[in-house]
Amino acid sequence: MTIKDIARNCGVSVSTVSRVLNHHPDVSQEVRQKVLDEVERCSYVPNNSARDLVRTRSDAIGVVVRGTGNLFFSAVLKAISTEIERCGYTMVLHYIDTDADEVKAGAVLEREKKLRGLIFLGGRFDYRPTELTTVTVPYVCCSFTNCFGSLEEQAYSSVSIDDYQTAFRAVEELIRRGHRSIAAVLPGTGDRSISELRYRGFCAALENNGIQPNPELLEETGGGFEMADIYQGVCRLIERTKDFTALFTLSDTAGMAAIKALEDHGLHVPEDVSVIAIDGLAVSEYAIPTLTTMVQPAEEMGKETVRILANMLRDPAYFRHKLLETKLREGASVRSI
Amino acid sequence: MTIKDIARNCGVSVSTVSRVLNHHPDVSQEVRQKVLDEVERCSYVPNNSARDLVRTRSDAIGVVVRGTGNLFFSAVLKAISTEIERCGYTMVLHYIDTDADEVKAGAVLEREKKLRGLIFLGGRFDYRPTELTTVTVPYVCCSFTNCFGSLEEQAYSSVSIDDYQTAFRAVEELIRRGHRSIAAVLPGTGDRSISELRYRGFCAALENNGIQPNPELLEETGGGFEMADIYQGVCRLIERTKDFTALFTLSDTAGMAAIKALEDHGLHVPEDVSVIAIDGLAVSEYAIPTLTTMVQPAEEMGKETVRILANMLRDPAYFRHKLLETKLREGASVRSI
Repeated sequence: MTIKDIARNCGVSVSTVSRVLNHHPDVSQEVRQKVLDEVERCSYVPNNSARDLVRTRSDAIGVVVRGTGNLFFSAVLKAISTEIERCGYTMVLHYIDTDADEVKAGAVLEREKKLRGLIFLGGRFDYRPTELTTVTVPYVCCSFTNCFGSLEEQAYSSVSIDDYQTAFRAVEELIRRGHRSIAAVLPGTGDRSISELRYRGFCAALENNGIQPNPELLEETGGGFEMADIYQGVCRLIERTKDFTALFTLSDTAGMAAIKALEDHGLHVPEDVSVIAIDGLAVSEYAIPTLTTMVQPAEEMGKETVRILANMLRDPAYFRHKLLETKLREGASVRSI
Repeated sequence: MTIKDIARNCGVSVSTVSRVLNHHPDVSQEVRQKVLDEVERCSYVPNNSARDLVRTRSDAIGVVVRGTGNLFFSAVLKAISTEIERCGYTMVLHYIDTDADEVKAGAVLEREKKLRGLIFLGGRFDYRPTELTTVTVPYVCCSFTNCFGSLEEQAYSSVSIDDYQTAFRAVEELIRRGHRSIAAVLPGTGDRSISELRYRGFCAALENNGIQPNPELLEETGGGFEMADIYQGVCRLIERTKDFTALFTLSDTAGMAAIKALEDHGLHVPEDVSVIAIDGLAVSEYAIPTLTTMVQPAEEMGKETVRILANMLRDPAYFRHKLLETKLREGASVRSI
């Protein structure tokens, strides 16, 4: 696919396509839209010389990764990296801690590296528009969206799963397998984060099946996402009560840490306690037992994020909020009772 | 630490320091060496304005990561990223498959992104000088070095562990615990890669203890490094013979996959078979049982790589080949017999 193909498909000249890509005003709105639609439909990637025509600043796309130990993000990052390159841009990577401010980091990166666009891989769910004024380039939230915040929908893009719905389905699976005393170990339940969203899905699935969420079966880690935090949370839960047959966790690494804590207390998985998680990492397939988990499409998530950003760079009015499907990977950590 | 401190410590003017950093010829060799030694001693990081003085091309450092599913590399990469930023450079990341050519990828990246330097995270151990002529910027091999190749020592730098010695010590640990029938599942034994190096260490430890390596107890995966490859390799081994009490594997993920394969065949770890690995990932601490492994210092490896490259960028004559220490992390996957 070249700029000539785009021009031919649209019935316009090559220079018209170039003017559209270059945001020249002397193109009718109708032609402009036709060209942009075709560019999007074909996932057209400008070649170097064409890109040089439209390039006004650098070709750098910043990627701010929040959470340095997150194995799911490692999987998404590979797809982001590959797709950024395929699209002819340069990726500038920046890691921050889970409790650091990704917007501030992104704004600094934008200025220092003269970015054309930004990808936040992990971040807060509650942005206010005033906070985002420091970011002046197009940006895509990857793996999260602004469901607790007040950003205008067209001010940004996002690619994520439906966290609420995915947690709901995971817990429904436990209930379908006969479980009714279901515990949860989570970073937090009112922190306006991924943890709160998934906790809401957890509660909704229980209530949908006539089960009242039991505060005794809930353990919060105070924000900690690391395997050590979850391990300790599960230990506290077990020391308080063993009155549950299943445990819901937020991520595959959390699920693996939970299984370890259960086994270390003499509780076997799945004989004594079933464990379910969300992510679908390769490494959790080799956990003992193989983790039952809701698979997030890591590669698709990374690719979609870059494609949407590339469209935003071509067309300042473009935005998308894409929810990706998750699906159950049946392992051996959940049994029917 | 500023350029003024460097100048004062050396008893020269600020402009002399600047001329040295900028590779101006009008500085005596003696003064030049004194300044460069001080810059290295202080781990001096030029600030932006000082850097602008010396900057001739971009501030981009390319990082070519070979092996997209390598969890150890993910840990090293975070340290590389943080240190590149701390040094005031910009990281350009590029992933390639385990069987792809990192030199070719690096050469393309160098031209396209106008790199100042390159880091190869993972790569071949047998470079010939003619192959490397396409890479014209300073480069550091991270996690490997050129022990099967013919590069001049001063043509590049490297930061790695002593693969032979680390494997030797892992196998010595198994022998110390009473094991003498020790199997190995590896990508290859004559592939001039990390696998061959570690296999040589494995054999040397056996021979050092009067044990003849037994070809029956060796299984090669034909180059495969993935968990699925190792899992299948261990399955083939078990189906051929169960006449071993311990198993040596190349990496933590390989160790975890091996434990899974053993358990799936009804062999318990460590009751029936002890398993040892090399890496020391966080995730393998939560494996069941906790993996006994030789810990590579991932963070130090990443930091040292960038520091050495920064010195190479300041001083064209600079090179270093650094071997980092590994240490045993006692888990529960090895028992005494």
